[in-house]
Amino acid sequence: MTGGTFDKEYNELSGTLFFKDTHLPEMLRLGRSRVDVSVRTLMMVDSLDMTDADRALIVAQCRQAPESQVVITHGTDTMVETARTLAAAFPAASGKTIVLTGAMVPYAFGSSDGLFNLGSALSFVQCLAPGVYVAMNGRCFEWSRVRKNKETGVFESA
Amino acid sequence: MTGGTFDKEYNELSGTLFFKDTHLPEMLRLGRSRVDVSVRTLMMVDSLDMTDADRALIVAQCRQAPESQVVITHGTDTMVETARTLAAAFPAASGKTIVLTGAMVPYAFGSSDGLFNLGSALSFVQCLAPGVYVAMNGRCFEWSRVRKNKETGVFESA
Amino acid sequence: MTGGTFDKEYNELSGTLFFKDTHLPEMLRLGRSRVDVSVRTLMMVDSLDMTDADRALIVAQCRQAPESQVVITHGTDTMVETARTLAAAFPAASGKTIVLTGAMVPYAFGSSDGLFNLGSALSFVQCLAPGVYVAMNGRCFEWSRVRKNKETGVFESA
Amino acid sequence: MTGGTFDKEYNELSGTLFFKDTHLPEMLRLGRSRVDVSVRTLMMVDSLDMTDADRALIVAQCRQAPESQVVITHGTDTMVETARTLAAAFPAASGKTIVLTGAMVPYAFGSSDGLFNLGSALSFVQCLAPGVYVAMNGRCFEWSRVRKNKETGVFESA
Repeated sequence: MTGGTFDKEYNELSGTLFFKDTHLPEMLRLGRSRVDVSVRTLMMVDSLDMTDADRALIVAQCRQAPESQVVITHGTDTMVETARTLAAAFPAASGKTIVLTGAMVPYAFGSSDGLFNLGSALSFVQCLAPGVYVAMNGRCFEWSRVRKNKETGVFESA
Repeated sequence: MTGGTFDKEYNELSGTLFFKDTHLPEMLRLGRSRVDVSVRTLMMVDSLDMTDADRALIVAQCRQAPESQVVITHGTDTMVETARTLAAAFPAASGKTIVLTGAMVPYAFGSSDGLFNLGSALSFVQCLAPGVYVAMNGRCFEWSRVRKNKETGVFESA
Repeated sequence: MTGGTFDKEYNELSGTLFFKDTHLPEMLRLGRSRVDVSVRTLMMVDSLDMTDADRALIVAQCRQAPESQVVITHGTDTMVETARTLAAAFPAASGKTIVLTGAMVPYAFGSSDGLFNLGSALSFVQCLAPGVYVAMNGRCFEWSRVRKNKETGVFESA
Repeated sequence: MTGGTFDKEYNELSGTLFFKDTHLPEMLRLGRSRVDVSVRTLMMVDSLDMTDADRALIVAQCRQAPESQVVITHGTDTMVETARTLAAAFPAASGKTIVLTGAMVPYAFGSSDGLFNLGSALSFVQCLAPGVYVAMNGRCFEWSRVRKNKETGVFESA
């Protein structure tokens, strides 16, 4: 978990959005997931605020993780940039399948795409060959062939 | 769509559960899905009430569908039985990848696993080899190696 | 609390509706209620199954309660019948204002009227003269002048 | 309707909160309300941005309304200030009962107090004597005896 819209909450005193804890365990419970996972919160940031140091930390944590299949929840605005950094660190020969996903609407809000995207990312990561991917809108893209369309909010082939 | 818990609704006059329309289009919209799909409602039944004729209809519709990738939403109680019928009709050589999924709690209720399962099934169907599968609990099983544990409600290896 | 649709839940193993615990404390929290209340669960039954003994228990508990303002959550089907029993036991001279309310859709489901009705009943009970009332659909009726229209599910003047 | 947190929505492209349309009709439908109402949207603003001209418009609209009972949805931050303006314009002799209410969390989000507050305000307005009131947290205060505690977000006696 790295934060992103996925995990934003509404602060009812200030009327602004903020990060508290990740909703991932609750989402896995809601989805009745029985996928064997180990959940780690690396940071809780808006992806527009993500620094090179943050990305280096993500790479380091992926390297340290014994798992060969990794899902990263991430803000959508710079998801592709983080995917590029990961791709440089984890060539196919590394044996790691890494899938980034996120949400357009916070899970805590009424109408989030988060649960759909989580089910999607967890599934793609189990059957794709080693590499770095972005799973959004029910589709999965190789990291180098995707961009977020800022006008529609949709991830599309690039 | 064949019905199942996925699409059950609460009748506020009688206090009982019933089927009206499928929620699938609404769920795809909520998930911001951009997977190219054609949606067909074959029936709206509780899977315990599903007959051989119903299963023959499902097979016939899959055969008629030009798509090589098919997701079937289905009640969980007899999902494996329908998967067996489909497997007899669609050997790997048929080129069809068929993934059955469902829900433990109706989508219309607060805490459904439906959106997670739909994201999962739509993703598995895009990357698995031809065959018949059951996608539940974030996992995907070959039709001949899965059973629903009636005590826990979880699909497990068999 | 006496049960009723208000507090019905979905049993995901059997696919049927059942009672577990009352959702009232959670609903008061969601409504940010600061009304000073004491919450008691008297029973958890479908109002169609409510017996004379159950109604006698409700009367006894209201009598024992030191509060002069009481809200009773109750199944809608026999709400008026229980109101009549209460009215016989608590004439205006008793100083008690008793408001019965309920829900057409369980709170645990997506689209319940429960939170609206609870806000309404808690408000009416604070400003009405002693007597027995039914608060549904945003309106409040004296117990002797209301009936549930079984065809529309709406409480109306009688 | 004047806007306020009640009617804020999440803009999934910019990740910010904004106003679109009021959710009031949908909320009345969800609450199965049968209270005879006429709904008017006067403005859609954050109450911190509300000007004297906005308040004059609210007064003018209340004066013009043939109804003697009025509920105003309003941002919580300056709700008491608007109540004061209304009180100057509508003394008890005016025969108008005006109840202001709002929400701490937008209705469109998962965990809003909006539906509870709406049920509460609609009920108080039906039984209180002419005057100007604030209905929040399940309670109702005369306009001159309430303040919002900015630290807790709770309306309390002042």
